[in-house]
Amino acid sequence: MLYIGIDLGGTGIKAGVVDEKGNILLKDSCPTLPERGYEAVIHDMAHLAIDVTVKSGHTMDEIRAIGIGLPGVMDPRSGRVPFCTNLAWHDVPILEEMAKYTSVPVFVDNDATVAGLAESVAGVSAGCENSVFVTLGTGVGGGIVIGGKVFSGSHGVASEIGHMVTVDGGEMCTCGNRGCWERYASATALIREGRKLCAEKSGTALLKAVDGDAAKITAKHVIDLAKAGDPDCCALFDNYVHHLCVGLSNLINLYDPEVIVLGGGVSHAGQFLLDAVREKLPGMVFYKTMPYARIELARLTNDAGIIGAAMLGR
Amino acid sequence: MLYIGIDLGGTGIKAGVVDEKGNILLKDSCPTLPERGYEAVIHDMAHLAIDVTVKSGHTMDEIRAIGIGLPGVMDPRSGRVPFCTNLAWHDVPILEEMAKYTSVPVFVDNDATVAGLAESVAGVSAGCENSVFVTLGTGVGGGIVIGGKVFSGSHGVASEIGHMVTVDGGEMCTCGNRGCWERYASATALIREGRKLCAEKSGTALLKAVDGDAAKITAKHVIDLAKAGDPDCCALFDNYVHHLCVGLSNLINLYDPEVIVLGGGVSHAGQFLLDAVREKLPGMVFYKTMPYARIELARLTNDAGIIGAAMLGR
Repeated sequence: MLYIGIDLGGTGIKAGVVDEKGNILLKDSCPTLPERGYEAVIHDMAHLAIDVTVKSGHTMDEIRAIGIGLPGVMDPRSGRVPFCTNLAWHDVPILEEMAKYTSVPVFVDNDATVAGLAESVAGVSAGCENSVFVTLGTGVGGGIVIGGKVFSGSHGVASEIGHMVTVDGGEMCTCGNRGCWERYASATALIREGRKLCAEKSGTALLKAVDGDAAKITAKHVIDLAKAGDPDCCALFDNYVHHLCVGLSNLINLYDPEVIVLGGGVSHAGQFLLDAVREKLPGMVFYKTMPYARIELARLTNDAGIIGAAMLGR
Repeated sequence: MLYIGIDLGGTGIKAGVVDEKGNILLKDSCPTLPERGYEAVIHDMAHLAIDVTVKSGHTMDEIRAIGIGLPGVMDPRSGRVPFCTNLAWHDVPILEEMAKYTSVPVFVDNDATVAGLAESVAGVSAGCENSVFVTLGTGVGGGIVIGGKVFSGSHGVASEIGHMVTVDGGEMCTCGNRGCWERYASATALIREGRKLCAEKSGTALLKAVDGDAAKITAKHVIDLAKAGDPDCCALFDNYVHHLCVGLSNLINLYDPEVIVLGGGVSHAGQFLLDAVREKLPGMVFYKTMPYARIELARLTNDAGIIGAAMLGR
């Protein structure tokens, strides 16, 4: 049996035909152009799904399900998308709209959730019953797999792990609370702390790396200088790893997964990040002498959205 | 079919014969006397289980399973109890020991987990697919039910919700971390803050309530004075509710259950606590316009341990 996976982003729509094991047979993409409204975007998604099927030499009656991963939340009870901020969607009847174009069953979930599912089927957490996928990007997102299936909670809002408060009273978050984990464990946090450093201290290597323009600082600048041994950036990175580990330790205390997979921009720091986390975390977990989650880097990168979305219908 | 539920505590062993719906047909108890070592305690558990069955007019071949709830952690892979601090147990082969006395299958889990299961079968969260039980006692424990079943994670250590860090860098915890939720949301936290108040301010109503002996302060003293409108204790209670809600909001972001059930000593504050939480929490949840978990008080109290343990084998 075959599946279609659709990775819906603010810029592009990617779709692929995927087999039972998570292999992509054929994929294609088109621009999202969200300003046209949800009807046009969903029209294009449906047509792209049909087109990739035909181009792959198959027909729609061979497709068991269509899965869609999107940067928002799905309400499993209503079949609607209450929020998808990047696309300016509010209360969009996505299943009803898709049903205009195809009778194949459609499943929708959050993009981080879908990426986590992809890793648990065809990536680094393959074969694990319980895993948590953590995207360390502009924010911090989560994909929870329990018993081999996506866990989205009772109202579709589980896995908002980035908004777990770890520093009550700390940095103001966009959600209205203070001290959410993503204020400390996202790429945005590394950028904020990098800029703060340059504002407080003159002649830093970090400021030199961006030709004196602190607005150009990225997480990669901080990480690369930490890798090179710059003391200021090493201190920023150590502090980042501390906060990352506070949240990872919380995830272990709450979900006790076999694997926690780190994905998103900051995870491109690779082995340097992994080594730092694996050194810091053991001192913070509750049961220090019992086995607990392995920490791994995401293996599927660009295709995780298509593969994971396809696997929603498996 | 019938089940036996055993509630193993530091002081007493309680056992009951329980039907499929969670009704106790007959129960009995005996002292634990943990200083005798685990072999003697497990011997007594097994014999108590057999005795309640016979006294209830049934035979052991009518018993489908024996469940045991204990104040520690069970390793599902080894069938052993790595830790049960109150009983001074370390790496106890509980299944092997029980099998000496009976061929009925035995299931073991944490006592807070078991109480959560009891509520989800015969209590306030009955019929819910996903629920979280929170015990607000000396510490903070958790019982997670996902898909109608106990969720203990991959290594049996999930639901250590009391050791979720909510105030990084805050109060020192017995586990070695700082700012664990239970440092702020347990009865112990109310006592600590009550004593701190009496040390810092003279002539408080709280100190009068304990005849000038701050060592006698209990959570109930603080709560009763807050109920009566004492400004000092109202401030302590408000601060307690804030921290409680930070953790509850985290549980919603991570598990998104249908119901969160509050149990344990502090939950005896009843409607007063429930009203305060229901007022504070809505401002803290992430998706403010979407449905999220109901907050309820535990309904089964003394019998939750027996009922929930019995339901482990269902």
